[in-house]
Amino acid sequence: MTSIRGLGLDEARITGGFWARKIDMVAKEMLPYQWLALNDEVPGAVPSHAIENFRIAAGEASGRFMGTVFQDSDVAKWLEAASYSLSHHPDTELERRVDEVIRLIAKTQRPDGYVNTYFIVTAPEHRWADLAWGHELYCAGHLIEAAVAHDAYARASPDAEKRKSKLLEVARRYADCIDRAFGTAPGKIRGVCGHPEIELALFRLYGATGETRYRDLAAFFVDQRGSDPAAFDGKKPLGASTSTPWPEMAGYYGFEIPKTKWFERDYMQNHAPVRSQPDATGHAVRAVYLYLAMADLYSATGDEALLKALRGLWDSAVSRRMYITGGIGSQSHGERFTADYDLPSDTAYSETCASIGLANWAKRMTEVEGDSRYADVLERVVYNGALSGVSLDGTHYFYVNPLEVIPEVVDCRQDHEHVKGQRVQWFGCSCCPPNIARLVASIASYAYGVGGDALWVHHYAESESETQVSGTRLRVSQRTDYPWSGSIALFVDPDREVEFSLKLRIPGWCRSFACSINGRRAETADVSKGYLSIRRNWKPGDRVELDLAMEPSLIRADGRIPELAGKLAVQRGPLVYCVESTDNGEGLHALVLDRKSELRAEYDPSLMGGSVLIEAQGYREDLRSMDTHRSSAMPYEDAGESRLAPTAIKLVPYHQWGNRAPGGEMRVWLRSKE
Amino acid sequence: MTSIRGLGLDEARITGGFWARKIDMVAKEMLPYQWLALNDEVPGAVPSHAIENFRIAAGEASGRFMGTVFQDSDVAKWLEAASYSLSHHPDTELERRVDEVIRLIAKTQRPDGYVNTYFIVTAPEHRWADLAWGHELYCAGHLIEAAVAHDAYARASPDAEKRKSKLLEVARRYADCIDRAFGTAPGKIRGVCGHPEIELALFRLYGATGETRYRDLAAFFVDQRGSDPAAFDGKKPLGASTSTPWPEMAGYYGFEIPKTKWFERDYMQNHAPVRSQPDATGHAVRAVYLYLAMADLYSATGDEALLKALRGLWDSAVSRRMYITGGIGSQSHGERFTADYDLPSDTAYSETCASIGLANWAKRMTEVEGDSRYADVLERVVYNGALSGVSLDGTHYFYVNPLEVIPEVVDCRQDHEHVKGQRVQWFGCSCCPPNIARLVASIASYAYGVGGDALWVHHYAESESETQVSGTRLRVSQRTDYPWSGSIALFVDPDREVEFSLKLRIPGWCRSFACSINGRRAETADVSKGYLSIRRNWKPGDRVELDLAMEPSLIRADGRIPELAGKLAVQRGPLVYCVESTDNGEGLHALVLDRKSELRAEYDPSLMGGSVLIEAQGYREDLRSMDTHRSSAMPYEDAGESRLAPTAIKLVPYHQWGNRAPGGEMRVWLRSKE
Repeated sequence: MTSIRGLGLDEARITGGFWARKIDMVAKEMLPYQWLALNDEVPGAVPSHAIENFRIAAGEASGRFMGTVFQDSDVAKWLEAASYSLSHHPDTELERRVDEVIRLIAKTQRPDGYVNTYFIVTAPEHRWADLAWGHELYCAGHLIEAAVAHDAYARASPDAEKRKSKLLEVARRYADCIDRAFGTAPGKIRGVCGHPEIELALFRLYGATGETRYRDLAAFFVDQRGSDPAAFDGKKPLGASTSTPWPEMAGYYGFEIPKTKWFERDYMQNHAPVRSQPDATGHAVRAVYLYLAMADLYSATGDEALLKALRGLWDSAVSRRMYITGGIGSQSHGERFTADYDLPSDTAYSETCASIGLANWAKRMTEVEGDSRYADVLERVVYNGALSGVSLDGTHYFYVNPLEVIPEVVDCRQDHEHVKGQRVQWFGCSCCPPNIARLVASIASYAYGVGGDALWVHHYAESESETQVSGTRLRVSQRTDYPWSGSIALFVDPDREVEFSLKLRIPGWCRSFACSINGRRAETADVSKGYLSIRRNWKPGDRVELDLAMEPSLIRADGRIPELAGKLAVQRGPLVYCVESTDNGEGLHALVLDRKSELRAEYDPSLMGGSVLIEAQGYREDLRSMDTHRSSAMPYEDAGESRLAPTAIKLVPYHQWGNRAPGGEMRVWLRSKE
Repeated sequence: MTSIRGLGLDEARITGGFWARKIDMVAKEMLPYQWLALNDEVPGAVPSHAIENFRIAAGEASGRFMGTVFQDSDVAKWLEAASYSLSHHPDTELERRVDEVIRLIAKTQRPDGYVNTYFIVTAPEHRWADLAWGHELYCAGHLIEAAVAHDAYARASPDAEKRKSKLLEVARRYADCIDRAFGTAPGKIRGVCGHPEIELALFRLYGATGETRYRDLAAFFVDQRGSDPAAFDGKKPLGASTSTPWPEMAGYYGFEIPKTKWFERDYMQNHAPVRSQPDATGHAVRAVYLYLAMADLYSATGDEALLKALRGLWDSAVSRRMYITGGIGSQSHGERFTADYDLPSDTAYSETCASIGLANWAKRMTEVEGDSRYADVLERVVYNGALSGVSLDGTHYFYVNPLEVIPEVVDCRQDHEHVKGQRVQWFGCSCCPPNIARLVASIASYAYGVGGDALWVHHYAESESETQVSGTRLRVSQRTDYPWSGSIALFVDPDREVEFSLKLRIPGWCRSFACSINGRRAETADVSKGYLSIRRNWKPGDRVELDLAMEPSLIRADGRIPELAGKLAVQRGPLVYCVESTDNGEGLHALVLDRKSELRAEYDPSLMGGSVLIEAQGYREDLRSMDTHRSSAMPYEDAGESRLAPTAIKLVPYHQWGNRAPGGEMRVWLRSKE
């Protein structure tokens, strides 16, 4: 087992470039905006009621619980994101809000440690009674993740008094409460949550506290899943509806579970023990949260059966069921995986949360296997399917991330109801907005790792890290315009000369690269599992230049994806591109890429705060209405001559679409001319 | 107003060829099979209970009503089809069954004339109380249509005693009952049925009886629709569920009407008065049944506002919302029209009943306008979107007629749930099977018309007609292999030499034609509104040869249909073609037509009882899995070289698909190489 320890935000930070702008946006726009949203103070947005639920549960307000049954998790994810943000953006106002929410959560906590506003307010007698749909352990998991994040932030405080996170105390007491309730011992509940999350959270809590009970409880939940496949059969959400006054939310909890095959055992990954699950299946977010925990369990135990299952699940999810954007879960009904190579562009679900979950799973797989094929997927999904979930200004969101949007089609078809043609302010089920906040705010923690006597650079970003390698304090920093440029300068700065390996990921999209050390061309043959390994005696002040050729290229899909036969996409570096009507006029289906299209990339600092626009030489089909010898003709005619005329096609990064003239057309896959 | 009177089955009949085989199939297979189905005697098929409902309502059996609330209409449509069939296929066993059902219906009839087994058995106190969803007038309409058909059959009986149809008496008494209940007079119900049908049926009853009250009542229903747009707002089906023991049917009546925009006022065409409806909208079957009645009303009144509206609705339905197969109503949810140019191939609803309704509307428009553009649509929809609804052996049916089927996709996607990859035995809502039976059994009545001093030949089929033109008895017969061949020999045989016009339709698909009379080349310049008019003194024994060039051709769609950009279809004569995996192997998305593909058509008598197979020169893309440098690759790669290799592509008529190896792939629109 390769074992790489990722460097957390205490050891790695963004210092500039692409991601500095993103984390600034989180700090300055997204977190304040989401705070307003959670407090129902965004005019025109669907109310959240999430903070108010805590006030009610804490006895500081009266009223009814409102929102989804897992509304608490929005607060937890916001807290987690805020904790990450505070580590690089000191903000007393934000800190005050964080402390206030923690106080409220602590006050909500029952004497035995239990925290869940829905069950406390609405159905205290039903605690743990609705494992299938109640999302209690799911919410607990997010609370724990927030606590671990807050604890890391708190521990770094110069103020000794602040070094102990009160939220971590809350989380530990809650975890203890759960530990008393669940397990294999007589009298305990031998069951799992319908929505995996508690498992990975408990592994994180174990990591933060060293308390093995949390690891063992996490292992229990992972092992228990699917061992009683019938556990959820016929279970319905507890009758109580939230009956909120908002039509968007009415009856969201207590909703009728569709009696379709897409809500059967695999929906909650409970169809078989986890080691016997061959395909990535069911609800996509649930799936990847579970698989991440399986990777955690493998890390903790070295159980090869788990690794074998993980590799199979990875192949299934990534080689056969993933969009080019890294999106997973192609179907709205059940927010789930369907079948191999079923990847429709226009009705794609590709939930933002599933992309984030895939990124986190990929991070753990990278660390477990030391193989860049995982980091390649992380990069793909973060830069495309995840980042597309938030507007450039941080205040509008996609839950669903389609690869093709024609507003008229979205508007007229019931099977497109889940698709939004433009990002919106908030959702009745608003899991995605705070989730993308926590991903972006913690992005530095995905870049570096240490394992054995190697420093791993998984991802390129203007950043710095500081950790121990081979017994020596080592600072590594990067200067780069990545992802706009493939040139990266790495400053390797150990306290003293020391031998170790620097492992630089050579991305799968990169066709050629060069490397130099202190100005001298370096050997580039030692690439293993996608990492260039440079082993030497490193000295303070060493400088590595890595040049990844970043030419735009035309991409085709596997021929087994019927939807994409004869189509091409454009990618440059990790970024998947798309056409928008803003640049190309309406009727994007008229655009045709030539298999030999020349592609020209140019950085434009004025375009959406800086972007690389790609211009392709292609064709546009004349879409004028048909020549017909009289009116009332049918819209079909003899094929006749080709009506393609040369044209320039302008493409922008997919994740930036819909930011200039929201509501227009967009598509990733274009027709091609052979 | 052109006014053409269609020749009914008493004046026109099929004598051989394509349609003789079809009507034989109806007589020998379909009607006996459907009789078993209506009596719940088809093993494995979803039970109908339709006949049993009549037995219960007539007091001859006990039990509960089961099935959809409009289950009676299946019996009526079967009776109508049987009546047509008996006119050309004497069958004492069938006649016995018909008489028995008529006896049962008559016994069901209440003293005041009312007939409806659902309301009689289940909710007698709610008569006329559920106009929105109850389908009472809809069922009444089908009963009336059956009665008119049976009356026509009965009147032609050599047996004087049989010449009076008992079913017509029942229908008249029921129509009188409806006439007493509905209308503008004080105390009458000023409302319409949620599902148009009664209107066109009352016009037919007026035609059969000459009773102007029926015409006026029909006019009232047409005029009333949309005059109170709020009439159905918030209406729910009467609470009573049928609660049948069959899961397919449980709660079918009393089902929850989705609260979506696709079930708003336009769903039942009640959003505006009919003369102010610009777009073909809402439930497609409802729509075309209404428009047909509007054409009837225009025929009766000459109201130009109606004609104007009809032309607008026609343009909307046919120029912008119709599949190449003639199918209409692209969306499953609401079985309805969506928006212009929204014509997805794979999720196409294109209900068989909507195709039949469009054919009937087109027939009336042809007769009203004397313009072949209507007959062209009739031909297109009958030979493609309608005939596809039944298997070659008459015992398996499509409700939904997609233009592309990949079994794995149909199987894995919820938005394809309405699509069946192969025809099935029967449906819980089985409106289509008996509807296609009545269309086929009465097909001869679509071919000919008389108007002024002209005999119109709208459609070509081996057939004969006999009627009065210019005061003279005229027999016209056709010998032809249409639609396999475009050569038609017409024998024009008046009792004596007489001047009149023979109007021969030149189909819109036909690019050139030749005509000769008694072996001498005829003038072909006088083509008006798509009809070649030959005016002369016709003599007994005159022979006309019409040669319609019937070359296979490549068809493209209007550029405003995004779905079909860059795709081509193949058509020959009225027949739209498709590829099947049976002929071309799996992975039909790999097939590519060249814009200059050579197309070769050949009649094969052994293929599905006789068919013209088309072979195109095209390409097949190599769909082997991608070249990847290691496993777990993503299914996307650099585009590289084209992987097209020349191949022969075999196409069969769309309406015949799925008859050889049911369950395979099929597609109409293929990728193209420019």
